[in-house]
Formats: sequence, C-alpha cells, structure tokens
Amino acid sequence: MVSVLRAERLDAVVCAAPENVLLASGYWPVTGVSAAVVTSAGEIVVLAPSDEEELAKGGWADEVVTFEPASMEKIVSTVDVVRAKLAVVLAKLGVATGRIGFEGSTSMRPASYVAQNVYGGELVKAAPEGKWIGASAMLERLREPMTTGEIERLRLSCRIAARAYEQTVSRIRVGMTERAVASALEAEFVEALGCFEETEAHSAACGLAGASVSGDPAKPQAAMDAVASAKLPFGSEPQGRRQAAEGRRAMCFAYCMSGANAYEAFAAYQRSRGRRIENGDLVLVHCNSCVDGFWTDITRTFVVGEADDRQKRIFDAIFAAREAALKAIRPGGTGAQVDAAARQVMREHGFEKEFKHPTGHGVGFVAIDHNARPRIHPVSEDVLDVGMVFNVEPGIYIEGLGGARHCDMVVVSETGYELLTDFLSRPQSVEELL
Amino acid sequence: MVSVLRAERLDAVVCAAPENVLLASGYWPVTGVSAAVVTSAGEIVVLAPSDEEELAKGGWADEVVTFEPASMEKIVSTVDVVRAKLAVVLAKLGVATGRIGFEGSTSMRPASYVAQNVYGGELVKAAPEGKWIGASAMLERLREPMTTGEIERLRLSCRIAARAYEQTVSRIRVGMTERAVASALEAEFVEALGCFEETEAHSAACGLAGASVSGDPAKPQAAMDAVASAKLPFGSEPQGRRQAAEGRRAMCFAYCMSGANAYEAFAAYQRSRGRRIENGDLVLVHCNSCVDGFWTDITRTFVVGEADDRQKRIFDAIFAAREAALKAIRPGGTGAQVDAAARQVMREHGFEKEFKHPTGHGVGFVAIDHNARPRIHPVSEDVLDVGMVFNVEPGIYIEGLGGARHCDMVVVSETGYELLTDFLSRPQSVEELL
Repeated sequence: MVSVLRAERLDAVVCAAPENVLLASGYWPVTGVSAAVVTSAGEIVVLAPSDEEELAKGGWADEVVTFEPASMEKIVSTVDVVRAKLAVVLAKLGVATGRIGFEGSTSMRPASYVAQNVYGGELVKAAPEGKWIGASAMLERLREPMTTGEIERLRLSCRIAARAYEQTVSRIRVGMTERAVASALEAEFVEALGCFEETEAHSAACGLAGASVSGDPAKPQAAMDAVASAKLPFGSEPQGRRQAAEGRRAMCFAYCMSGANAYEAFAAYQRSRGRRIENGDLVLVHCNSCVDGFWTDITRTFVVGEADDRQKRIFDAIFAAREAALKAIRPGGTGAQVDAAARQVMREHGFEKEFKHPTGHGVGFVAIDHNARPRIHPVSEDVLDVGMVFNVEPGIYIEGLGGARHCDMVVVSETGYELLTDFLSRPQSVEELL
Repeated sequence: MVSVLRAERLDAVVCAAPENVLLASGYWPVTGVSAAVVTSAGEIVVLAPSDEEELAKGGWADEVVTFEPASMEKIVSTVDVVRAKLAVVLAKLGVATGRIGFEGSTSMRPASYVAQNVYGGELVKAAPEGKWIGASAMLERLREPMTTGEIERLRLSCRIAARAYEQTVSRIRVGMTERAVASALEAEFVEALGCFEETEAHSAACGLAGASVSGDPAKPQAAMDAVASAKLPFGSEPQGRRQAAEGRRAMCFAYCMSGANAYEAFAAYQRSRGRRIENGDLVLVHCNSCVDGFWTDITRTFVVGEADDRQKRIFDAIFAAREAALKAIRPGGTGAQVDAAARQVMREHGFEKEFKHPTGHGVGFVAIDHNARPRIHPVSEDVLDVGMVFNVEPGIYIEGLGGARHCDMVVVSETGYELLTDFLSRPQSVEELL
C-alpha cells in the first residue's frame, strides 16, 4: 500500500467503507462509522467506536483511537465526533496539510450489518488545509490481488458455505417453497459456522478441520510475498493478529429460483419466491455468504428427479464451459481469454445467446460487483495475476423453461488456479442424493 | 414534498439511497443504482435498471426510465450510464440549470441487498450548470412522520415479525447456542412471510389475516391527510399502486445474547455467539426485519425456567418504565418527556445507571439510526407529531449478570399512540410457554 501511495503521490489515505478499513487494517467495521488512516510512511491508525474496540484491536493497526458515537448528556452527530478525532490524528501524523486520498466516488458496497453509515464527503472537513484527492479507484485496485492471509480467510468462508450447501441438498423436497430452500441453506450456514467453532474433533467430523489453515502447495512463497509487499503497509503478512473477538462475524444471503422462475437468475437481482418445487424442476440455489468480511459468490443447480435430455444438454454445456474457463486461467492471461474459452464451448453446444452474462468478476471484499477486477468479460484486458480471486459462472437461461448456473470461486496461482469451491462439482440430481 | 422543496427553494431533488427512492416513489431499489427525481412542480421520474423495471413500476412515479447497467459489448461504468440518462431527465424537466438538492452528507443506510451501490458525489455531474445543494437533512426530515400507506406497510412488517417471535419461543431449549436461537427466528420469519402470501384462509390461520389492511380507528383521517399532503408530491395517498412484483422482498437480521453476554446488548452492535443457553438464563432476542423496505426494531427477553428475585425486579422495572413511556406519548410532547417518564421509573426501581441508552429513536425507513427523528433522548426537543414512528426500548444491563430489554414500536396518534408490536408483552418464561 505504501508503494501505491507513493506512486500516487499521496501522503496518506483516509477510508471509512468497511471493506476498505478491512483492507487497510485487518478490522472489519460493523456499523460503518469507523475510519482508517494509512500514511506513505506506513503508519496505520484506526478510529473505532468503543463498542467495536475489541474488533479493531484484532487487526494490525499501530494505534486504535476510540470514540463515543453517542452521548446521554447531549445529542451529538457521529460525524462531528469522528471528524474532530480524525483532525487530531491527521495533525499528529503530520499529513493534515498534505495530499490525502479519500473515497470520493461511486462504489459497490457489501452489507456489513443491518444498517451502515455512509459518510459521503463529510470527513474531508477534518483537514481543511489538506489537498484531498479521490482515491476510490486506487483502493479498489489494492483489493486485488489478495495476500496469503486474505486468501486463507476467504478459503474458510468458502468451506463453511460448502458445508452448508452439502447439508442443504438432502433437505430439498418436492413441495417446498423457494423461500424455504433458501432459508434451509441460511440455517445450515449457521450450523456450519457453529461446527467450525466447536472443538477440533467436532470440526473434523464436519469436514472443516484445518479449514483456517493455509496450505496451497501450488502457491509459491516468493510470488505471494510480492503481493503482500505491494499491498500491506509494512510489506509482509501480519502474524498472529486476527479478529480477536469471540465468535466470527458471518452473514448468509441465500436465494432459490426454480422452474420457469430460474430464467431470471441472469439478472443482478436474485430472489426467492413462494413457488413450490416440482418434480422435474431445475432448482438454482445461489449464495452470497461472508465470514469475517470475506465474501463468497456461489451457485449450484439441481434437478429434481432424473434430468431429461434437454436438462442433460444444459448441464453438459455448463460443465464443459466451466472446464474450458478453468483451463484458460494463468498469470499473465487476460479476463477476455477466460471468457472466450467458456463462451466458445457454449457456442459449440448451441447455447451462445442463452449465456447472457460475462463469465465472472472479482470477488472477496465484495460479493457482487460486476466491475470488480479482474473482469472476466468478452472485452476485458484485465491481466490475471497470482493471488487474484474471481468467480467462474457459466449459466444458461431459457425463457419459459428456466435456468441453470454453476458458479465457482478461484484464486490465480503461479501454475494456473486453485478452486476455492471444490464441492458438488458435477450435475446434481436431488433424488440421487437422498 | 413539494411544499418542502418550495420552502427550501429547490427546483428539484435527486436521490439514490434506496430508502429515499422509496420515500419519493414507493419503489424500494435493490442494488442501489436507481435514482429518483422529484421537482417542485410535483413531477416524479425514476431511473431504474431494467432488472428492476417491474419493481419500479409498482411505485407511483409518473415515469420510469430504464437503463442497462452493464453490457456484453463493452465494459461500462454504471455511473456513466445513469449520469447520461439523468442529464436527459433533468433537461426534460427543465431543472438542469436550477437549484437541485442531492444527498451530500452522512447518513445511516439500511441494507437493501447483499451489496449496494453508493454513488458518492458522482451524480451531480449530470447537470454541471446546476446549483447543487446538500439535501440529506431535508430528506431525513421528510421520512417522518409517516403517511397512512407507509404505516400500513410497516404494520404488516411488524405483524410478520410478531408471528416469527411467537413461533420461535416454543423452539428455545436449554443447550441451544445463541446462534441457533437467532437462526430459528430468521427461519420462522421466512415461514411467517410465506403464511401471509398463501391463501387468505391460511393467512387467517397464522393470525395474519388483514395484516396489510390499515384500520386504526384512533387515527383521524384529517390529521393523516395533512401528513400525506406535506409529504407526497401529489398531496394525497396513492391508491392501488403497490410493489407489483410477485412476492414481497424481505430480510431478517436476528441476534440472540444470553447469560452474561447479554450485558453487551446496550451497544449499537448486537451479535449472537456460540454460547449455549442454560437454565436460569436471561435470553435477549433482538430482531431487525424488513418487508418491502419498512424496518422493524424489536427486542424480547425470556427467562429460562422460573425468574429469580433479581430477574423479577429487572422485569418489573422494565415493564413499568415501558408503561410510563407509552403513557407520555402525545402529539405536541417532546422526545425528552417520553425519555424522562421511562428514566424516572428506572430510577425509582434502582436501575438508573443500568439503563444505559436513550429510550428510543425514529424507525421505519431505517432500522438502526440513533439520530433518526424523533429522538427519545434525555435532551431531545424533537416534537412528536401524528404519524411519527419510533421505538420504546427500556433495558437494564448489569456487567457479569446479563441484560434484558423490551423494545416496542409505536406510531403517534391524535390521542396518544398505537402499539405496532403488541405481542409477548409480559415478562416471558420459556418453560411456561412450552
């Protein structure tokens, strides 16, 4: 991050979006009132409400300055409280009259809680003599590629989601509503999270033992050290500092779209309705879950009963396109190359126009952001680099009939890719699995 | 809204935060890329992604302009697409060189989906000749008081949450984790939502029949007409236009804090952990749920087994404080008066310092915003008005022992208040209810 700040000729950057505070300090804010300052000298100061002090200290900031966002004596505005503290911090760091980056422009922001504060342009008033420079794009670029530590946490997030999917499959029944299927996945997510937090033996029984331990042999230390060096203020992976609070903060938004409803699953907006699952349905189950701020984007599609010929052709095309896309992943390749590999297979299978969206997009700090790098889009020149994380989501949507999609998450490794979502990776019939 | 725009000498206001688009047009955007324009002549135009066209048309905008936020041919930035369309809309409305209000400052924003776009200051570039004026505070004020139609939708939201609570009580068992209790409430919320969407007979069996029908006899038409006249662009409640899409969009964030953990429930950040419920525990169950954009803020606290003397004293104080606060609610009264009524009772019961937060805050368009009007705070001069909605949440938090809170939602009526959360309204022992 320091080298990037220097390249942008910034003396410091101030961020408050939870995903950016997480990036900068390892602490994922809850209600969005916290802020992080990183200077070009590598100093990191976090401002956090006293409620979240424990969480903030679980990160790697050099200093955590707490504040009271509310008072019983008078009615205060949180922004006034934070701005005053921020003014002191910026002065102390010697950057109050310097060039300061801030989140000036549009961004796709993941849910961090029920409701989340958005500061708008208010924080820049903390240093009226400073030269504030919009740095949203810089922060976005810094989120990719991911460091070993970030990938480790994302891997855990994916494994908990995988466990939830595996347990949910056996609960899908004819007659259940789409909403009930989605609700079952959300409940299984909570169960899986609990599994992981139990004793090691229990965790092993759930297939989650060691899930937090990195250990991808395909990822050479040298390349990942380079990622950390470019990204982290102190140039190396922080050791032994993790979210300190008891319990992991986690969320799961699951959606189920079945039968003809699943046609609409190509849209940005996935949703469950009251439709009841019928025999012969395609049942698309989509999940965006998050553990400690690291998001998944996963889809699996099931057939209820035996797949008919058309459904078999759909699955054949999707899994062949997936295979082709995965094979095309390598450092130095482009997003367009991976997209073309999948799209060519879809064309050969006669589903070119039914594959209605790009093959993927960056994921990790945010679940859904179609402009997150690397964009796996027909004209994307984004160059793949070791440690970049994105999804591969070939899908086929036919009006009136329905839709199917298989969405995986991968991280680019020196020799190709690591699949973060290696589960239920063949066409699945629900009855077979009962 | 028109009269407010005129009072602020604004020719139009442009908003993109989902809760403000909902306020202005009756449409609750999903991914936060939509925008609404309201002019001082009372025209309303909504810009929505084509994915959400059906939802947008379920509101009462005069015109819905759709756009494609993404393209397969080129990589586009959503903000560029929307800004170009917005420029055309502002020109057509004749306000492009006028005084235009925008969301310029800090705000607490409810989750509307997994992730949500935040435009920052980007939209103002749609009319470079315009004089853009920060209007966040004006929009916030407009969200209170609520119209008859808004209260009707909020009432439904509360009844679905009530049903979920009632069903969850019988599922709480010794040995369950806090997370499992919260997960049960979330699952019951989905069930309750489904109940409501079934046939009328089924809905009646679930106690939800007529839940969407307004019918508060205490609320005189004249007073509510005045609210609508001040707030809605065309001065009266829109008829027969509701969210048109099949299925209601709903979310539920539930938290359970038990035993000593519940001490921390006074903080802004509520959370469930892996602690298992024990006999004799206080079990605090908090819920922020939402149907069609209207949020609840509800807490109930249960005792597992028979309450001991200390727990009885805690419940006596909380319910007496609640009673006193409710009695103090009347149009023309202040937030401080309601807070003082509750706080005085807490003092008499010896729990003054254990009641660690204000008695309430505005709720409806956002679940958690301690600065939302009317603030029921010791020094709040906010004047209560017919149609204002807030919560009443007396709570007692004792370090090492735990905590208890009873959080209701009320709407101010001409003669006092209507209780929107009239369920489980006595101290509850879980075993009694088994």
